[in-house]
Amino acid sequence: MPWLYEHYHDLSAIGLHVTDKVHEEQSPFQRIEVYDTRGHGRLLMLDGMVMLTELDEFVYHELISHIPLCIHRDPRRVLVVGGGDGGTVREVLRHPGVERVVLCEIDERVTRVCQQWIPAVAGRLDDPRVELVFADAVEYVRNHPGSFDAILVDSSEPIGPAAGLFGGAFFADLRRALRPGGIVSAQTESPFYAADTVRGVFKELRGVFAGVHAYYGCIPTYPSGCWTFALAGDDLRLTDLDATRLAAVAGRYVGPSLGLGAFALPEFVRRLVEGD
Amino acid sequence: MPWLYEHYHDLSAIGLHVTDKVHEEQSPFQRIEVYDTRGHGRLLMLDGMVMLTELDEFVYHELISHIPLCIHRDPRRVLVVGGGDGGTVREVLRHPGVERVVLCEIDERVTRVCQQWIPAVAGRLDDPRVELVFADAVEYVRNHPGSFDAILVDSSEPIGPAAGLFGGAFFADLRRALRPGGIVSAQTESPFYAADTVRGVFKELRGVFAGVHAYYGCIPTYPSGCWTFALAGDDLRLTDLDATRLAAVAGRYVGPSLGLGAFALPEFVRRLVEGD
Repeated sequence: MPWLYEHYHDLSAIGLHVTDKVHEEQSPFQRIEVYDTRGHGRLLMLDGMVMLTELDEFVYHELISHIPLCIHRDPRRVLVVGGGDGGTVREVLRHPGVERVVLCEIDERVTRVCQQWIPAVAGRLDDPRVELVFADAVEYVRNHPGSFDAILVDSSEPIGPAAGLFGGAFFADLRRALRPGGIVSAQTESPFYAADTVRGVFKELRGVFAGVHAYYGCIPTYPSGCWTFALAGDDLRLTDLDATRLAAVAGRYVGPSLGLGAFALPEFVRRLVEGD
Repeated sequence: MPWLYEHYHDLSAIGLHVTDKVHEEQSPFQRIEVYDTRGHGRLLMLDGMVMLTELDEFVYHELISHIPLCIHRDPRRVLVVGGGDGGTVREVLRHPGVERVVLCEIDERVTRVCQQWIPAVAGRLDDPRVELVFADAVEYVRNHPGSFDAILVDSSEPIGPAAGLFGGAFFADLRRALRPGGIVSAQTESPFYAADTVRGVFKELRGVFAGVHAYYGCIPTYPSGCWTFALAGDDLRLTDLDATRLAAVAGRYVGPSLGLGAFALPEFVRRLVEGD
């Protein structure tokens, strides 16, 4: 097996050198593939899109979890929306104050495949603090008002199963699902290739939450390699970032050296998220 | 013409959708190709490697120029090593205090091709403040001690014509070519795919300069999309960053919002450049 390419909207492509197909199935929601690669470890693809490789998954999973959890004063109950691969849950569990993590993933097969074939990412899903809910997160969030200190929206692209996770109605439900002082983080796509999505998501978020901030990171196997994230809440101050907890959970991307630097945006990203 | 791929060391690939081949030639040093693309504007390739696209060249050119020039107290004489496409010179010229920019490029054909076919990047090379020198920068730097306030090492990969621009002997010559208070910036490759190069270059730099710092940015069409840069000097304080000048030259990447955030490194990058 030689090169496997993900073509992004007829504009660009990312190629990975795959050495073996480990697993393939069609779930009720999407096509799930797992490969071995040269230099990138295991690779998970959903509907032909790279979801993660073992080489760089740490970037995404650390950014979407440690930033909100170190800014929230005392996160105990956490909801992960999507994130069926388990990588975000793995990072959340590194915070000793967290008592409960609910993973609400629409496609149970993604989770089961990752538990079997990508244990370095999914291997913490059997922790007693974790509750697995295989359901539509839109409904789950709507039915759980006032329940979570932090909600991490670890969705796939805003097409297919995740389309409902990028709109104002869902964001309003997220806000209601928070406990006082609660905080939301979400992946919000590439500022180079999905500028309209980035602009639209931040506009919707600002219509719902009193405080909205953007941050970013480098993810080589996602289109453009540059990825944005949103942080939202009604009582949100970046200066609340707890340096002690940040140092304690420091991984390979997020840590004292990065600190709030992930919020120091390139100018064109700042303009996108501020709607200039 | 459909997809054109740059394969990086049998590990990964970047694909761009090219619509037309604009120019191709074999210079004495390398194969030069210019394409039109879908969504990325003009594309320059040297020996099959993406050097720039009009979509994202601003990232590299702003980072390698505005950061050192806004930290130096009064940069008047600037040397660009390599950088035959003219993009770095274009950004340097936006600093009104700069009196002279020498571009020392080994391959005149790169510059002439870019002047003809990529004027958005090379179009400022006829500015009266610019001096074009088509020569080996290793010799040029050695022969110009005490001459420059800032030297920007805008090289290609450390193979082929640019191999000599990544070693301690060259860095020592760079130091001698600086005027008092002088400063050097250099592109130093991808921390994901060229970790050994990054580690090695920073070790060499620390052996030569009293002050060495790393910064980084997102460049979609370079391998991994994540790129490091070095800043070096004997009398170098990041806090000297001049916010007024930074705001005045703010472009699409470097500006007040980014500020010194580009120096807030992901943990794995910090470990690489510090040799942990």
